Amino acid sequence: MFFNPKSVAVFGVSRKLEKPGRTVFENLMNSDFPGKIYGVNPNAKEINGHKIFSLKNLPEVDLGIFVIPAEAVVKTLKEVAHKLKGAVILSGGFGESNREDLDNELKKISDKFGIEIWGPNCLGVLNTKNDLNATFLPLSRVRMPPKGRVSILSQSGATVASILDWAGNIGLGISKIASYGNQLLISDYEILDYFMNDPETEVIGFYVEGLKDGRKLIEVAKRGKKPVIVFKAGITTQGIKAAKSHTGAMAGNFKVFKGVVKQLEWEIVTNMEDFLQVLKLRSIWKTKVKKAGIVTCGGGFGVMASDTLEKYGIELSTLSDNLQKNLISKFPKRVSVSNPIDLTGDATPEMFDEAISALMKESEVDAIIIILLLQLPKLTEGIVKVIDKFKKGKKPIIVVSPPGFYASKVNEQIKGVPIVASPNRASKILSVIKL
Amino acid sequence: MFFNPKSVAVFGVSRKLEKPGRTVFENLMNSDFPGKIYGVNPNAKEINGHKIFSLKNLPEVDLGIFVIPAEAVVKTLKEVAHKLKGAVILSGGFGESNREDLDNELKKISDKFGIEIWGPNCLGVLNTKNDLNATFLPLSRVRMPPKGRVSILSQSGATVASILDWAGNIGLGISKIASYGNQLLISDYEILDYFMNDPETEVIGFYVEGLKDGRKLIEVAKRGKKPVIVFKAGITTQGIKAAKSHTGAMAGNFKVFKGVVKQLEWEIVTNMEDFLQVLKLRSIWKTKVKKAGIVTCGGGFGVMASDTLEKYGIELSTLSDNLQKNLISKFPKRVSVSNPIDLTGDATPEMFDEAISALMKESEVDAIIIILLLQLPKLTEGIVKVIDKFKKGKKPIIVVSPPGFYASKVNEQIKGVPIVASPNRASKILSVIKL
Repeated sequence: MFFNPKSVAVFGVSRKLEKPGRTVFENLMNSDFPGKIYGVNPNAKEINGHKIFSLKNLPEVDLGIFVIPAEAVVKTLKEVAHKLKGAVILSGGFGESNREDLDNELKKISDKFGIEIWGPNCLGVLNTKNDLNATFLPLSRVRMPPKGRVSILSQSGATVASILDWAGNIGLGISKIASYGNQLLISDYEILDYFMNDPETEVIGFYVEGLKDGRKLIEVAKRGKKPVIVFKAGITTQGIKAAKSHTGAMAGNFKVFKGVVKQLEWEIVTNMEDFLQVLKLRSIWKTKVKKAGIVTCGGGFGVMASDTLEKYGIELSTLSDNLQKNLISKFPKRVSVSNPIDLTGDATPEMFDEAISALMKESEVDAIIIILLLQLPKLTEGIVKVIDKFKKGKKPIIVVSPPGFYASKVNEQIKGVPIVASPNRASKILSVIKL
Repeated sequence: MFFNPKSVAVFGVSRKLEKPGRTVFENLMNSDFPGKIYGVNPNAKEINGHKIFSLKNLPEVDLGIFVIPAEAVVKTLKEVAHKLKGAVILSGGFGESNREDLDNELKKISDKFGIEIWGPNCLGVLNTKNDLNATFLPLSRVRMPPKGRVSILSQSGATVASILDWAGNIGLGISKIASYGNQLLISDYEILDYFMNDPETEVIGFYVEGLKDGRKLIEVAKRGKKPVIVFKAGITTQGIKAAKSHTGAMAGNFKVFKGVVKQLEWEIVTNMEDFLQVLKLRSIWKTKVKKAGIVTCGGGFGVMASDTLEKYGIELSTLSDNLQKNLISKFPKRVSVSNPIDLTGDATPEMFDEAISALMKESEVDAIIIILLLQLPKLTEGIVKVIDKFKKGKKPIIVVSPPGFYASKVNEQIKGVPIVASPNRASKILSVIKL
């Protein structure tokens, strides 16, 4: 219901453009959300050409989105809860500000009217399928990410804001985003359960500082079969202290958490770059990786990839004599055909094609790191088509393409595979999906 | 002489636009290089409107740049070496291809004519001051990086190509770039010595797989006083093997290398992102860091920064009661004034200004991580001026600004400080300049 309402009402639609309630309303009005959208403000009849409703003349609506001060949320809900199935409360100022009295009022309202309450103190929900964006992020700041099969949940609102924007930036296809804030009545494990059963979600991303109820989460997780990538923050003494001050969450012991995650066969990351890139990789490939092949056009970058794969516990595949002979016969003498395959500075897209094709057939290779130095004159835009050819292959590929002038133009055209700036990053990502 | 020739001659200027010799020539012709530029090709009198010289009618020239096959280099040099003071040989096909006979010929020529020889098998030299670009990277691929005080040396050519382009991308100001290849007659330690004595170089970056002569390098290094950032590749079993196949260099034991580097008080990085960002940081600030302060507008990112600082051995500064009281009096109640200072999702540029100013005055703070989530509505472009104000302050600052739609526009305007995508990266960089 939170992700697929037939109608929504925004409480707190101000005449002032910069007010968050107005932003939520404008976002929805400018979207392709197919349902009815009602703006609510007791002191206005019309804003920006749209009819505005009072609490009295508001009809029955599936979902209310509240962006008004905490006390006003409670007061308003008492009047309109009977017209709503659910409420997303974006506003803060409840339990996290020592207003447990307001929390109690919300609980009473939920009991009395049978209304479901999301939040409070969160960024809200987003569903790319029906273009439902119930967040207060203006579209001038953050575009909706591309539609996809990855759903992400996070207590922290600002973190989700960055995740959304970053996902758009790297072309990570999103299904749903859930920022759940204080978890007064709807908890992390319930949202996880929802995603586990959601046919539009194939991969789940979970940013977590502390859990509401570890046991219940494990129960839910054990029933689910989808890949889950967890980004755990609050893992050091300093981090746990900061997490406590941030969400009030007890971050708990990281070793215990890691043990649980291992048991659940979830994959764990400890930084944002890896989180988003592993989600992207997992949205395409589900296999685990033990040994990797490298194709490069710069020897130095091949060395860096070799170093970092070893550092993160991934072996360099030993390439068969057959493969090596085959490549020797096709390539100029200067090319090194052991792993890394170093096509050298004269590498062409065709040479990459040959080398990647060979590695795809090699049983000892579980994944391939492809290093593109687009500074080199013979490595042309033709490489986009070559990568395209392998992005639906059986083996995960990660493209390393350092930032640059021409590089940024070509990188933009490479879609549907993780692209990272350095061999270090690529190796780190593979280590997350290590067998 | 290699970096400040009064005149240059390019050997191998082809009629074909895509040939590297032609690229070198066109790059120079389209640059502001103030000296005379001669194109040489025995079979042409004019190319693209430029007069082309034969070996016979070529006058005396400071620097010859050779982009012709290895055997032709030797043959040509025998004829023209008496007209040249130095030669940069970009071409490969010498010792690295088992043609030690050609190496010997080059040595003989150098002895006989007193000509200095750079390379062979390299990307050549670049000097932003006089716009001398003696590399074969087309300007359609790589723009000259901004002028600055950082000089970089590397054996590997393709690595330098990427460094150049990446430097341009992050606005790292470059003085000189030296890709030295086979080091037949001019070695890494000689170039290092040159940079140590070059008044236009303030910070030195050194990408290294293996050293030509460790003892001599240490001698040179001990005489120098400039900060050196070393990017060492070939540090694991796999990496050392790859380095051997790449440059033939024996990468040696990383622990020994680290010991030497520590003794020299050089700073060591093991990946490209850190290399470039630490160079940028060191081109502004020379101080070492033990404790850091964090200012964030997202609690989750504050937790991530706390985690990663601890992971990389940097302490979170304890903020004085005075500072905390002062900030409490200035900020809304929801702001957390311990370290990290969490301005929360309503943060404005003015609030960042207040918080950073306070940290700048705090003796317990050696460096500041500033986390900008430009998705948040109240964090406007005004932040550019705020960062500007502190970029010449005494304490290193690193801006964390994750990629995004509006973020990318603002990030482009923030100049002169390291900007990274994640707290992890910022912490890693500070760990490199750790006290």
